[in-house]
Amino acid sequence: MGAQIIDGKSIGQGILQDVSRGVLDLIEKGIRPHLAVVIAGEDPASHVYVRNKERACETCGILSTKIELPDSTNIEEILRVVDALNRDSEVHGILVQSPVPEGIDEVAIASSILPSKDVDGFHPHNLGRLVQGDLGGLLPCTPSGVIRILEDCGAEMGGKRALVLGRSRIVGVPMALMLAQKGVDATVTIAHSRSEGVEDICKESDIIVAAMGVPHIVKGSWVKPGAFVVDVGISRLEEGGLAGDVSPEVSEIAGWMTPVPGGVGPMTIAMLMSNTLKSAKEINN
Amino acid sequence: MGAQIIDGKSIGQGILQDVSRGVLDLIEKGIRPHLAVVIAGEDPASHVYVRNKERACETCGILSTKIELPDSTNIEEILRVVDALNRDSEVHGILVQSPVPEGIDEVAIASSILPSKDVDGFHPHNLGRLVQGDLGGLLPCTPSGVIRILEDCGAEMGGKRALVLGRSRIVGVPMALMLAQKGVDATVTIAHSRSEGVEDICKESDIIVAAMGVPHIVKGSWVKPGAFVVDVGISRLEEGGLAGDVSPEVSEIAGWMTPVPGGVGPMTIAMLMSNTLKSAKEINN
Repeated sequence: MGAQIIDGKSIGQGILQDVSRGVLDLIEKGIRPHLAVVIAGEDPASHVYVRNKERACETCGILSTKIELPDSTNIEEILRVVDALNRDSEVHGILVQSPVPEGIDEVAIASSILPSKDVDGFHPHNLGRLVQGDLGGLLPCTPSGVIRILEDCGAEMGGKRALVLGRSRIVGVPMALMLAQKGVDATVTIAHSRSEGVEDICKESDIIVAAMGVPHIVKGSWVKPGAFVVDVGISRLEEGGLAGDVSPEVSEIAGWMTPVPGGVGPMTIAMLMSNTLKSAKEINN
Repeated sequence: MGAQIIDGKSIGQGILQDVSRGVLDLIEKGIRPHLAVVIAGEDPASHVYVRNKERACETCGILSTKIELPDSTNIEEILRVVDALNRDSEVHGILVQSPVPEGIDEVAIASSILPSKDVDGFHPHNLGRLVQGDLGGLLPCTPSGVIRILEDCGAEMGGKRALVLGRSRIVGVPMALMLAQKGVDATVTIAHSRSEGVEDICKESDIIVAAMGVPHIVKGSWVKPGAFVVDVGISRLEEGGLAGDVSPEVSEIAGWMTPVPGGVGPMTIAMLMSNTLKSAKEINN
């Protein structure tokens, strides 16, 4: 027995190939999709993430520009950079790498990016369209990557119980909205650090998306046999190495499970590329 | 035994009194809060709703203007009217009464109202702020009225199970977001017409918000003894009279229950007045 381990890298590659084809089509029309990434400070993990995004751009033929700001930057400086990129008609996607230096309001920055260039999908306008059940906007990359995994694996979602662990504006909340939307039709529960009895809700769930950022919080005994378990959490352990929110023994109980790393991570980057292509197409329409 | 029946009219009156005081303060500063209501077509129920909103404005000292359009109107005409109201610095709140005549896109109309004048709280920007966990925007009136009822009755919400039946952009989805937000901290499930096993989820829930628009769908046998049951549904029965989504016998099982009518309805109007006051204050800040 044991869960089918989902190869997010391979599903992500498929998406990158589709994006590459779309990019070629646009280039033939004289448009080179262009992503601008703003990174402030020296956080090594953030620099790795940005490098991975640049690599994915290269793979797809998307032009990428990195704007580096010092750790001592302030919100005014970041907003000035974003404003210039908003006005630059040759830039189609803008993202400001998280986390920004301490004390800088990330939500204010997310709200400063033009919704049509907001390839992270964090602008309130894009999130609000999701509440309206309108999937035509730019969707947050991680939750839309999770939906792609579920679809790709043929997971039955309509009418089924889905549990989202975590209520961040970036993952948990938009994930719940996407799972509950018409056409997907899951019955969605949002649980979080203040929730009581999470274990029992977990046991009833056909789909579990763990996005708490707490290493190995989801235990094997919490999971319904055959459940579809998606692990969004990624924590750096003190003793070294990475851990997801899902305990390894869950793989003996679940029917499907995403690994950490190599599960949701590559999907997030693939959806970012897909969003950048979408932006470039729509801005030039 | 039997549930405590919640007098939404009385809680709503308290809110209207607070709004009246706030309106007086603004009038002393030379600002008369002003709500513009656009109504298209002859639907008798809509005209009753609009009349009730006008009366609430009178009660609070808010100026109200009604713009009536014929049933034969089109979206361009409604957008022109909204645009003029957006530009009118003496109008602080704008709402377009639902339903609009058949074939007209209500979401497009909601998106055309300036977010700062969107007293219904339906603009994607306001809904998106809710996803971000930012409660500073204009919140949809019915769900924020439900939160006020829960708070006013001292309902314990933190960590508790809440079930929202219905996933509309106007009630169900924003309701779920508000219940799950930090500070309220409920564990929220969104169920809908495609959900399986709703009865079992209902039985586990400490708070039930029924917003399906299906008369008496929530039965006494579905409800956990002592639960807090909020009935948002309101349907006109063929045999005459109004019915909520909650079956009458639930009052023997629940701990708290809102009646239909006289429960959530008056709260919705009270929150609309509260939003109009908020708009008038902020536009003039």
